Amino acid sequence: MKLGHQGVSGAFSDEALRKYFNNKGQILSYKEFEDVAKAVESGEIDYGILPIENSSTGAVFKTYDLFKKYNICIVGEEYLKIEHHLFGIKTANLEDIKTAYSHPEAFKQCSRFLVERNIEQVAYFNTAESAKWVSEKMENSVGAIASERAGEYYKLKKLKENIHDNPLNTTRFVILGTKKESSEKADKMSLFVILNHKTGTLYRFIKCFADANINLSKIESRPIPSSPWGYYFFLDLEVLKNSKTLNKALEEAERHSTYFRVLGHYKKSSKE
Amino acid sequence: MKLGHQGVSGAFSDEALRKYFNNKGQILSYKEFEDVAKAVESGEIDYGILPIENSSTGAVFKTYDLFKKYNICIVGEEYLKIEHHLFGIKTANLEDIKTAYSHPEAFKQCSRFLVERNIEQVAYFNTAESAKWVSEKMENSVGAIASERAGEYYKLKKLKENIHDNPLNTTRFVILGTKKESSEKADKMSLFVILNHKTGTLYRFIKCFADANINLSKIESRPIPSSPWGYYFFLDLEVLKNSKTLNKALEEAERHSTYFRVLGHYKKSSKE
Repeated sequence: MKLGHQGVSGAFSDEALRKYFNNKGQILSYKEFEDVAKAVESGEIDYGILPIENSSTGAVFKTYDLFKKYNICIVGEEYLKIEHHLFGIKTANLEDIKTAYSHPEAFKQCSRFLVERNIEQVAYFNTAESAKWVSEKMENSVGAIASERAGEYYKLKKLKENIHDNPLNTTRFVILGTKKESSEKADKMSLFVILNHKTGTLYRFIKCFADANINLSKIESRPIPSSPWGYYFFLDLEVLKNSKTLNKALEEAERHSTYFRVLGHYKKSSKE
Repeated sequence: MKLGHQGVSGAFSDEALRKYFNNKGQILSYKEFEDVAKAVESGEIDYGILPIENSSTGAVFKTYDLFKKYNICIVGEEYLKIEHHLFGIKTANLEDIKTAYSHPEAFKQCSRFLVERNIEQVAYFNTAESAKWVSEKMENSVGAIASERAGEYYKLKKLKENIHDNPLNTTRFVILGTKKESSEKADKMSLFVILNHKTGTLYRFIKCFADANINLSKIESRPIPSSPWGYYFFLDLEVLKNSKTLNKALEEAERHSTYFRVLGHYKKSSKE
């Protein structure tokens, strides 16, 4: 089984992928989000992983927008707690660190610690690559802010753990494939739709599911660049099982749409 | 009347502000989005303007998130077509330009032109500041991608007009004040809410308005960092006039919310 993620080994996406597949499979790294979608669509890999939402910063639109361009499905999801630690080389101590390398998003999430310690920030492509860079630079005064896994992978010393401000920081990832893989256990469904322009369509669309006792757990809107102030909607539904009621609700909902695609019917993951 | 926007003179926000207030009032420039919200709240300015959505790239979350922190209202809106032109100094010709300065977002929006002409891109704080910079640098080979107004303001020569890929590129701005200013002509209402955690609440919330024949024209969700996978919702309603029906719908909707705030009831602007 071939699997793919964006970023270098040790990146959060790598970690989430290993968690979902229990460390099985051959793992490939891709430079861009789009490269992962392309590799899934072409069959170069069996499954890919991409982050879709963070509990503090919200939707990852780069991922949402890829569903417009690639014929890919969601076959599962994984949640990963994002914990940042400060790493240095083996001879370094916490007091030595004057400069930290990391992704700008990680600096934002660790701002309290960095300000208190007066540590200079240098932006880098991603957190795992900054760990790699520090392991090569071999200077006591230079640290990296990265995940547990990235620190271990590049054989760095953990100088201070959990330096992020908000302890409740989790990212939701989706597992991408080319075929929908609905199983008996599937209890979540993701839709991607464009609704009719008529007044009240969003209400009538949601009503199809409410009438069938299907809960809408998430709604996200994205602009349609070629049609100003028109929107794509991404919706997550809590669907207990494949049933006639569900099929009827989907059929009715489709009638209110000009574009309608079930991205996947898969098993919910634990949010921890 | 004191007015404020983010960015230097000639920025798109400046242009939208002048359009809304018909070139009246004294205009102040602020460095950050948050500075504008702060100046409105403190009474340093009477009204401020901030971009809230672009028809190609979607919601401007930096602006949405400011409503959580500041006690400010929406008193109006303005739409501005975003048109990018290439400017140089008076002695420059189109063929001379080897390097262009602009905001990264503008580069993205003009990528076809830049690739065709093989022009190198240097990122700058915003489009108007890049025009200012080019006017000071005085080199024939250096251009700026900016608005009509910014080019005029810094006395540059327009070398090529409308170089953006998508001709349908419009930004919606909101006019911010400290007091809601509902008038007879108000026909749009913006809400900012947190819904109960119960199953089906979003449907029941929207139903309150549908039952009153009030159309929901927009819905945007943002995460609550302290409560993972909980959301704030920003909604725009088409409200014809203040009426008993409206008040009843608002009261009912509030019962499904743990936080409920009418951000403003104001007159819709033309989307052109």
